[in-house]
Amino acid sequence: MPRVASDLVTSFALGELAERLDAELIGDPAQRVHRIASLDTADAEAISFLSNPRYLPALATSKAGCVIVSSSHRDAAALRGAALIAADPYLCFARLTQLWVSRGREATVPQVHPSAVVHPEAQVAATASVGALAVIEAGAVIAEGAVIGAQCFIGSGASVGAQTRLSAQVVLGAGCHIGARGIVHSGVVIGADGFGFAPHGGRWEKIEQLGGVRIGDDVEIGANTCIDRGALEDTVIEDGVKLDNLVQIAHNVHIGAHSALAGTAAVSGSTRIGAHCTMAGGAGVVGHVTLADHVHLGARSVATHSIHKPGLYTGLFPIDDNASWEKNAATLRQLHRLRERIRALEKNKET
Amino acid sequence: MPRVASDLVTSFALGELAERLDAELIGDPAQRVHRIASLDTADAEAISFLSNPRYLPALATSKAGCVIVSSSHRDAAALRGAALIAADPYLCFARLTQLWVSRGREATVPQVHPSAVVHPEAQVAATASVGALAVIEAGAVIAEGAVIGAQCFIGSGASVGAQTRLSAQVVLGAGCHIGARGIVHSGVVIGADGFGFAPHGGRWEKIEQLGGVRIGDDVEIGANTCIDRGALEDTVIEDGVKLDNLVQIAHNVHIGAHSALAGTAAVSGSTRIGAHCTMAGGAGVVGHVTLADHVHLGARSVATHSIHKPGLYTGLFPIDDNASWEKNAATLRQLHRLRERIRALEKNKET
Amino acid sequence: MPRVASDLVTSFALGELAERLDAELIGDPAQRVHRIASLDTADAEAISFLSNPRYLPALATSKAGCVIVSSSHRDAAALRGAALIAADPYLCFARLTQLWVSRGREATVPQVHPSAVVHPEAQVAATASVGALAVIEAGAVIAEGAVIGAQCFIGSGASVGAQTRLSAQVVLGAGCHIGARGIVHSGVVIGADGFGFAPHGGRWEKIEQLGGVRIGDDVEIGANTCIDRGALEDTVIEDGVKLDNLVQIAHNVHIGAHSALAGTAAVSGSTRIGAHCTMAGGAGVVGHVTLADHVHLGARSVATHSIHKPGLYTGLFPIDDNASWEKNAATLRQLHRLRERIRALEKNKET
Repeated sequence: MPRVASDLVTSFALGELAERLDAELIGDPAQRVHRIASLDTADAEAISFLSNPRYLPALATSKAGCVIVSSSHRDAAALRGAALIAADPYLCFARLTQLWVSRGREATVPQVHPSAVVHPEAQVAATASVGALAVIEAGAVIAEGAVIGAQCFIGSGASVGAQTRLSAQVVLGAGCHIGARGIVHSGVVIGADGFGFAPHGGRWEKIEQLGGVRIGDDVEIGANTCIDRGALEDTVIEDGVKLDNLVQIAHNVHIGAHSALAGTAAVSGSTRIGAHCTMAGGAGVVGHVTLADHVHLGARSVATHSIHKPGLYTGLFPIDDNASWEKNAATLRQLHRLRERIRALEKNKET
Repeated sequence: MPRVASDLVTSFALGELAERLDAELIGDPAQRVHRIASLDTADAEAISFLSNPRYLPALATSKAGCVIVSSSHRDAAALRGAALIAADPYLCFARLTQLWVSRGREATVPQVHPSAVVHPEAQVAATASVGALAVIEAGAVIAEGAVIGAQCFIGSGASVGAQTRLSAQVVLGAGCHIGARGIVHSGVVIGADGFGFAPHGGRWEKIEQLGGVRIGDDVEIGANTCIDRGALEDTVIEDGVKLDNLVQIAHNVHIGAHSALAGTAAVSGSTRIGAHCTMAGGAGVVGHVTLADHVHLGARSVATHSIHKPGLYTGLFPIDDNASWEKNAATLRQLHRLRERIRALEKNKET
Repeated sequence: MPRVASDLVTSFALGELAERLDAELIGDPAQRVHRIASLDTADAEAISFLSNPRYLPALATSKAGCVIVSSSHRDAAALRGAALIAADPYLCFARLTQLWVSRGREATVPQVHPSAVVHPEAQVAATASVGALAVIEAGAVIAEGAVIGAQCFIGSGASVGAQTRLSAQVVLGAGCHIGARGIVHSGVVIGADGFGFAPHGGRWEKIEQLGGVRIGDDVEIGANTCIDRGALEDTVIEDGVKLDNLVQIAHNVHIGAHSALAGTAAVSGSTRIGAHCTMAGGAGVVGHVTLADHVHLGARSVATHSIHKPGLYTGLFPIDDNASWEKNAATLRQLHRLRERIRALEKNKET
């Protein structure tokens, strides 16, 4: 299922690309491109793109056979050769990569690999695929066109939506559900127990986690990410959410549609994140709080309370050479007292 | 092995619950409850609980058929219907979830799945279970009632204690040991090499990791957590420790009994954590230090030195709107100089 | 493949060790040692070492049968018994552990386990091993002496260099490559898709990840670490790099030779890290920046911009008792205003 660069030996005529990508072509429709590359590494057989104006100098010197640009860079692009003019060059590039893969990738022939262990009471659709040495337990449902990678584990009563693709070694726990057109990368664990204990006499009494995990359509989940099952109700990931690698989603969390969490982000239990939020790498949210829609957290920044106003929030200690940091960090521990001293000085001034 | 909500279709009479949970019943012993729910989502067939007084308003409006409360809320609960009066409602709730699962979960029929690869020199107790496509190497010992999930790997000479349950795709490395009644979630890796190298001419010379991992009884380990083997002696996790998901335990670490580490917490090499400690999400401890018993680290807070006094310790940059953060972070890099300026002002005042 | 302590029952005569480790022996060449231990736990049958002078007091009281020391501690060591004098005792210790394992570990008999699913178009060298229930896809190449652990997944067109050892349950994605003498621990995922999306009308359009991962020789990768494939070109890990557990390497990252990243470190997309760099536990680098050679990041410190000068950089909020932290953190949010107040006081003084 994953693509290997060498599998993707394909090529497109610029005329076909213009039509498929809904872009205007400047140049010869019969000219072909054989790969996609960045402006600085592209050669005459490659197609490239300019989305960030700060790379404009690279446009002039690029050897790319064709470039995707916005109409505002039409003249600069035309000066150097073929171009596709697109309303949003980055989006156009994204769709180009999809086009490339759809042609370059061999279609998966639907089959249940003979080495897979599929319970007789599991339902696998006729057009679904199950990889080598996968395990599918009783009552699980694999929908049409879904691809279960090699060595995956699908627990009892779990379900995988149509066209959803699981890479090798994914765990989808019992009674957990993922919708259609999802992508789940290797090492993901969906439906482990949430971390719930009642303290009792210096020990921890387990609270059995009776909920499940409910994941919407068009969700992508990065490698080794964990989404725990809810304590009483379900942990919920809405449609279009994108989670990067090594992300931690605790029990009872609810993530609104089209939010995106970068690598090693972490959300503590019972927290509710709105729609269209983003969390940069390593950002976090404590438990039992709410983020409104369109809240954005900077790298490693931890929301320790609810945030009701959309916007960008940050809380990251600035890096410095170690000697400077040592001095500032030491002073930081006296910061409150420094404020008192300023107050005293101000008072003294007044008198 | 994991529970699916739909598997747990069961019900209890309140009289039986009162007896089993050692609680006093107000109401009809024959009344039945069919699920457990929070106060605000419960219906007449559900049992709920009040442990945090701040949810007291929800008690009055809850539609729950029965609520678990402490004696101090007996009157408020009795006003609205059936109630179980318990000394510690949260503990009572925890035990209720256990009761629910013990009745709702089908008993695992002990068997070694025919697709598992079990070395002839491994010992699997008669009442233990081994899941599909698991691998158990020579000399490994699986005790009575233990459950090895599908696709687990148990290395040579490793051992799993009685009644301990491993979810699918757990790795227990060679010569590593876990005690009785443990729970290990999917993706956990116990016994990878510690990160040990001697620098030599700009390269890293590997220090082979000759120790193992020794885990006590009643330990729970969350999904994708890693516990490395020791360099010369064992990495040790004592009885009753609870580790959440994506936790990193480096080589030679020693974690005292009944400590709990939340998601993405990390402990560096050769550090010793006392008993009854807690680390909130993303907290950390550097290497070669010691935390006393009953030390608690706040979210993302990193102990950079030994802590000998019990208590709560924090070190987290407060989050702010990005514009405010930028100004404060910039000033933070001059903090030491600000202190000098305050000193100068104070001196000036004196003269 | 992993070593179990009990497997390593072996012993060496001090004379042989002196010769093999290129060290000078003080004592009887026929004296044997049966284990390696730290100074404080060693007994008369153990060999120990002193590399850090702060453990000098432990040398005098150690019961070790033999100690490895530098020439500057020759006299102190000789006073207490046998000693090996080495130019670099820590390096000597590292090589001793390697010697121990090479003798104590049973040689892996090359075989493809009959339960492994190896595609007929994969190439497995005659001296390579493939563990139980591993999956190797079409076009993959496993070089001489390589060891593929149980339940590993090697994608189509991927390659594993000579003598490289993969522990159980490693995923090497399609078209990804690792060089010779590497060590990859369980749960590692190499070649999942990078996190690339173009925003479009409040949704995320996937950018297919067309690159691969290229890993050099002598690279070690810790448990559950993730290395994503590049968007257009390869993610690159150069020779001799060491990655600890739960490390996140995003797409298009380039890590220079002999750099070492400790547990839970994270590098964002398209960032270039020089050679001989180190990142302490939980350190991070944002995307699209460059670290020069010999840059060192302290624990949890995040490089938010390029660093061109070698040295140690830190940015970590100092931990404190929670009450002190609360006061200082609150004041920190007014830090910029405090600076204004100091300025006002200074101005006032001048007038």
